[in-house]
Amino acid sequence: MDFLHALIMAGGGGTRLWPLSRRDRPKQMLALVENRTMFQISVERLAPLLPPERIFIVTGQDQIAALRADAPHIPPENFVAEPCGMNTGPAVGLGVIHIQQRAPGALVAVLTADQHIADKARLRQVLAAAADLAARGQIVTLGITPHFPSTGYGYIRRGAPLAQIGGFQAYHADGFTEKPDLPTALSFLESGLYSWNSGMFIFQAGRILDEYARQQPHMHTLLRAIQDAIGQPDYESTLAEKWPQMPRISIDYAVMEGAQNMAVIPIDMGWSDIGSWQTLYEVLDHDADGNAARGAGRDHIHVETTGTLVYSDRRVVTIGVEDLVIVETDGVLLVCRRDRSEGVRAVVEQLKAAGETDLL
Amino acid sequence: MDFLHALIMAGGGGTRLWPLSRRDRPKQMLALVENRTMFQISVERLAPLLPPERIFIVTGQDQIAALRADAPHIPPENFVAEPCGMNTGPAVGLGVIHIQQRAPGALVAVLTADQHIADKARLRQVLAAAADLAARGQIVTLGITPHFPSTGYGYIRRGAPLAQIGGFQAYHADGFTEKPDLPTALSFLESGLYSWNSGMFIFQAGRILDEYARQQPHMHTLLRAIQDAIGQPDYESTLAEKWPQMPRISIDYAVMEGAQNMAVIPIDMGWSDIGSWQTLYEVLDHDADGNAARGAGRDHIHVETTGTLVYSDRRVVTIGVEDLVIVETDGVLLVCRRDRSEGVRAVVEQLKAAGETDLL
Repeated sequence: MDFLHALIMAGGGGTRLWPLSRRDRPKQMLALVENRTMFQISVERLAPLLPPERIFIVTGQDQIAALRADAPHIPPENFVAEPCGMNTGPAVGLGVIHIQQRAPGALVAVLTADQHIADKARLRQVLAAAADLAARGQIVTLGITPHFPSTGYGYIRRGAPLAQIGGFQAYHADGFTEKPDLPTALSFLESGLYSWNSGMFIFQAGRILDEYARQQPHMHTLLRAIQDAIGQPDYESTLAEKWPQMPRISIDYAVMEGAQNMAVIPIDMGWSDIGSWQTLYEVLDHDADGNAARGAGRDHIHVETTGTLVYSDRRVVTIGVEDLVIVETDGVLLVCRRDRSEGVRAVVEQLKAAGETDLL
Repeated sequence: MDFLHALIMAGGGGTRLWPLSRRDRPKQMLALVENRTMFQISVERLAPLLPPERIFIVTGQDQIAALRADAPHIPPENFVAEPCGMNTGPAVGLGVIHIQQRAPGALVAVLTADQHIADKARLRQVLAAAADLAARGQIVTLGITPHFPSTGYGYIRRGAPLAQIGGFQAYHADGFTEKPDLPTALSFLESGLYSWNSGMFIFQAGRILDEYARQQPHMHTLLRAIQDAIGQPDYESTLAEKWPQMPRISIDYAVMEGAQNMAVIPIDMGWSDIGSWQTLYEVLDHDADGNAARGAGRDHIHVETTGTLVYSDRRVVTIGVEDLVIVETDGVLLVCRRDRSEGVRAVVEQLKAAGETDLL
C-alpha cells in the first residue's frame, strides 16, 4: 500500500445546484452535506488510508488558491493547475505524470471532489482492495450499485469473476455504455450486471500511461513533454505551449473504454453525485416531517410543512407547503417543486442566453 | 359641500401582511397595489372632492413624520398626533375636535388609510351623497356590499329606505353585528340586508360630539378639555394629562352602535381591506398564468408556475409551483400556500412569544 496516491479531480463547474453553485463557486467548494466543503470531505475521508503528501489535486488555475486554503495540510506543490479546462482525459494525464515524477511506480486512485459517500470506511476498504488488484496490472473502476434506472450516468457491465480481494468481488469489466435511454437503463437494472460509472479508477501510473501511448499517442507525446519539464524552469512555458494542443476528451473515451485488463468492483457505499437539489435532499437528514435545512439560517419556522428543503441564511417561514426546494443566496431566490429541481439547468441556460452572467 | 372635511385614521399597525408590514412600517406606509403608499393613495383619491387643507390625519406620534413626508401638500398642522394608541373611539374624537376648532359646523368623513378602493370616482360620489345626508343630521355609514360570508368583519343591517340621494339609496341603519360565526354570516349574505362595516362614517362634527356627550360623557369631558387647549401653549400638557384617561374603546362601541339617526348607504366600489396576502393577490393585476408580482425585482422567471404572488426585490425563480405566496424582505423569507396566508398571524405570535421582536 505504500505507493497508493490519490488524484482528486477538482476542476469544473456545474450548474445543477444553481443558484448556490456559481461559476466562481463550484460544487466542490460548497458545504452541502456537512459543515465542510465537498472538497474538504473528499480529502479528509482518505485518512488514515493516505497521508496528505500522497494526495494530489488537479484543478483550474482560478480555483487553486481556494482549494489550498481548504486543505492547508496538503503540500502546495501537490495542487496541479490546468491552464484551462480540457475535460478529464488530459486532466488525469497531467495529474498522473506529476505523481509518477514524484514517486515512480506509484499506484494512483482517481477520485472526485464533489460526490457524497455516506460510508467513508467502506470507501477506504474498497480503495485498499482495488490498489491490490491494480498492483497486479489491472485498471480497476469502482462500479456503484444502481438504485434506479438513471439515464444520466454511464454504466459498466461486469464480465467473468476476476478475483476475491479484501472482502470484495472483482470482475472483468465488459464494456461501458454512456447515458442510456430509459428502456435500456431499465434492462440494465433488471439484469443485475451493470454498475454506474463513478469516475473513480485505480491503476499503476505506468499502466495508464501505456494506455495513453497506445490509444492517444498525440496526447501521450504532449504529456511526456510536460513531464520532462516538471521541476524545471521551463515548466510553465512548456505547459502553456502544450496544454492547448490537448484534445478535449473524457478519460472514459480517451483510454478507459479501450483499455486492456479493465476490472470492476461493484460497491454500495451510499454514493451520490448530488446532481440536483432533489439528490441533495435525499442525502440530508430530515426532521419528522421530512424537512431538511442547510445554511446559516437553519432555525426555520415550518407550519404544516412537509418534505421541503430550505437552503438560506435568512429566517425562513413556510406555511402549508409540501415537497418544495427553497434556496436563497446572493440576490437570487429559487422556489421549486422538489421533483422538478433539474429544471434549474434550463433557467441557467435562459439567463446565459439573456446575458445575465452576473447571476451565474 | 363647502364644509366636508376628511379625517383619515392612519394609526395602528397590523401583522397580517408580515413580514412586509412591521411595527415601524405598518400597512398604510407600504406601496402594496400601486407605486405609492396606501396612505398616499388614501389622500390622493379624495381630489378633486377635497382640497388638502380640509384633510386631517390622526396617527401615532411615531408615524407623524413619515406620513407628513408622504403628503407634503397637506398643512403640517392637519396631522394630529395621538400620544399613544387608544383605539378608534378617542382617536375619532380627537380628530373631530381639531376639525371643529378649525371649521365650526364642519361635516366630517372618517376614512381609512390602508384600504384598497378600485373605483375611486365612486368613492367620491358616495362621499358627496353621504355629506348631503349628514348635513340633514344623519350619521351615515358606508356599507360595503359583501362578496362572501366573512367572519372577520362587522355587519350593518339596513332598515327602512331613508332617501334617494346623488344616485344612491340610503337606508335607516338597523343595528351592528360584530364578527359573526359562519352560519350567521351565511344567513346575512342570503338575506341581502347586510353590508360590511367599512369603518367609513360621515357626520356633522357637532352631531357626533353630541353622541359622545350622551353616550360617553367621561370621554366627552376629556375631549372638551383638550379642545379648549387647541392653539394654546398648554395644548401638549393638557393632551398628555387627559389622553391616558381615555377608555380604550372602538368608535363602533363608543357611539355608533347606540347613535340616533344612523343611516347606511350600501356601496360596491371594489373595496378590500387587504387583510392578508390572499386579499392582496386578489386586487393585483395577474399575468396569463395568474401570477402577480410586486417589489423592485419584478422581472421574475416563472417556469410552469401559476397563481403565485411574489413580493421581492431579488431575482426570483419559480419552477413547477402553484398558488403560493412568496415574500422576501429584511432578513425574512415567507413561502406560504396562498389560501393559508392568514397563518402568518400565528407565526407573528410565535415570534413575539419567543422574544424575537427584531423580526416584527
